[in-house]
Amino acid sequence: MSHPVAPPLVLSMGDPAGIGPEIIAKALRERPSLRAQVVVAGDLDTLHRAVCRTAATPGAPDFPLAGVERLADLSGVPAGCMAVVQACRLPEPVAWGRVSAKAGRAAADCIAYAARAALHGEARAVVTAPIHKEALAAAGVPYPGHTELLQALAAEHRGVPVAAMPVRMMLSAPGLSTVLVSIHVALRRALDAVTQDNVLGTLRITHAHFQRRGMPRARIAVAGLNPHAGEGGLFGLEEIEVIAPAIERARQEGIEASGPYPPDTVFMRARQGSFDVVVAMYHDQGLIPVKLLGLEHGVNTTLGLPFIRTSPDHGTAFDLAGTGQASAASLLAAIDAAQG
Amino acid sequence: MSHPVAPPLVLSMGDPAGIGPEIIAKALRERPSLRAQVVVAGDLDTLHRAVCRTAATPGAPDFPLAGVERLADLSGVPAGCMAVVQACRLPEPVAWGRVSAKAGRAAADCIAYAARAALHGEARAVVTAPIHKEALAAAGVPYPGHTELLQALAAEHRGVPVAAMPVRMMLSAPGLSTVLVSIHVALRRALDAVTQDNVLGTLRITHAHFQRRGMPRARIAVAGLNPHAGEGGLFGLEEIEVIAPAIERARQEGIEASGPYPPDTVFMRARQGSFDVVVAMYHDQGLIPVKLLGLEHGVNTTLGLPFIRTSPDHGTAFDLAGTGQASAASLLAAIDAAQG
Repeated sequence: MSHPVAPPLVLSMGDPAGIGPEIIAKALRERPSLRAQVVVAGDLDTLHRAVCRTAATPGAPDFPLAGVERLADLSGVPAGCMAVVQACRLPEPVAWGRVSAKAGRAAADCIAYAARAALHGEARAVVTAPIHKEALAAAGVPYPGHTELLQALAAEHRGVPVAAMPVRMMLSAPGLSTVLVSIHVALRRALDAVTQDNVLGTLRITHAHFQRRGMPRARIAVAGLNPHAGEGGLFGLEEIEVIAPAIERARQEGIEASGPYPPDTVFMRARQGSFDVVVAMYHDQGLIPVKLLGLEHGVNTTLGLPFIRTSPDHGTAFDLAGTGQASAASLLAAIDAAQG
Repeated sequence: MSHPVAPPLVLSMGDPAGIGPEIIAKALRERPSLRAQVVVAGDLDTLHRAVCRTAATPGAPDFPLAGVERLADLSGVPAGCMAVVQACRLPEPVAWGRVSAKAGRAAADCIAYAARAALHGEARAVVTAPIHKEALAAAGVPYPGHTELLQALAAEHRGVPVAAMPVRMMLSAPGLSTVLVSIHVALRRALDAVTQDNVLGTLRITHAHFQRRGMPRARIAVAGLNPHAGEGGLFGLEEIEVIAPAIERARQEGIEASGPYPPDTVFMRARQGSFDVVVAMYHDQGLIPVKLLGLEHGVNTTLGLPFIRTSPDHGTAFDLAGTGQASAASLLAAIDAAQG
């Protein structure tokens, strides 16, 4: 069986000094059928090193790699091979576990390759392996992480300003998904970001995602901001003045949103099956429960992009890079989530 | 076997219109040995009704009740009886599931009885069944809940102002305990409460509690306030300016405190065994993970009082009151925690 004609799933390699290449190698070893469905946007030598490092007999790859020039050439890849499209320049594989501009540049180039493939309809979805923020910065990439870089690439492709391409992060563990109104800002600034427009925007983006996934009536629970969701205004007014009106507007648009619910029990209720997803008002409100339930199988999905993008919910783990010990569980969960 | 001479554990009955009396009856039915160790500060008729309602054959109590005038009379209680000290006036049992001033007054009187017994050394510890905030208010009790009422009673007993009797709430689920810097205030105000004095005070109170429980080297993890614990100042300065200095001062006092750790993973690490307890910077930071792990077996402990006080981590459940269906699991966990 060679690569099918249907657009493939593109995996970006991640920072070549981290565990990205190894977990990709492990995922394709543990699930051989994936080799016919995905192509890795990366560096052939780096990925070959990773396949050797994670092989049953170290140094003797369990399966071959096949480099392709373009995604259009995938049909020529023999069955059982890991298909790699050379998406970056690396004269030689970088040292494991070290921050470098070279590695950061390679990681960014692979992401850009994968995103453009998806934007041009040549990829079904994108799964990104972890990158290192400092390496990205060292390479002069003007974005702090995947989300912002993908957002910029999508906005550029559509010819709109970045502000017209609002995105949200969704984190999922087995049995619980949460979408965040804001992410990497101080908690004080996150409180200021709890506006009707931001909450309503999050609800629309969340609804659109589930609609695309065949769930137009997805039950979206909205967490409050304050203890006990403000207890009728006793502990804060944001629920009354901001969140409830945003929910009402969303409902008028046909979105199955409800709340605001007390934050300390809404995640438990979602996990018990009362809701399909919880909209969280700030980073830790959503991430504490998701990480508690399953860092091992956590998946990060970017909502709002014109294509589907998921990633494992962990970092480059420089301390593990090169040992072959990193687990591919979260990457496999991300691949499953991208397949939908 | 009659009641031993050792000071008993005192259970306050809770709001008589809620599930408190029933879960007490259930707990003493499920664990007959407890009947020789506890005395209920409550109303004999209300508790008799609860024992009847939760009996295997409804209406036919599985064990007898014995009223006592004073705790000193406990030694005369026959083996196998639920000992009840009449701690409130209720001409007749109140209607189930209804807020009333009568019920609120009775609940407050039972708490006061239990607390004074502990303050005078006549009780080993206090376990409180749930009360209803509105009933308390209807009765003109000038405290929003147990914690504030107990704090006031203890301060009065010591002859000090309430401010000199700082208390903190600890919530525990199987495998995870968290102590909160602040509780029922709007999140904006909770941020203002993250001061060096409040964090250090929380560490001292937490340390003293574990010391009293025979764990002078309890490993206390301190959560950050901001995403990723501020990421070196990128997302907020509270970790650098407030939390880290408070930890340093606590360590100089011999307290095994460490952090600040990223909030989204510190609870997971504590659950995995890296820490004995996590100090959380605000209500939902601590309560989201604890409630997710086990509302059924959650225990609330008030730290900082001159005596041990625990309670189940649920409310009066007016919708269940009188059905005999409420679970005694959380109350039993609270009794176990109080026994230490």
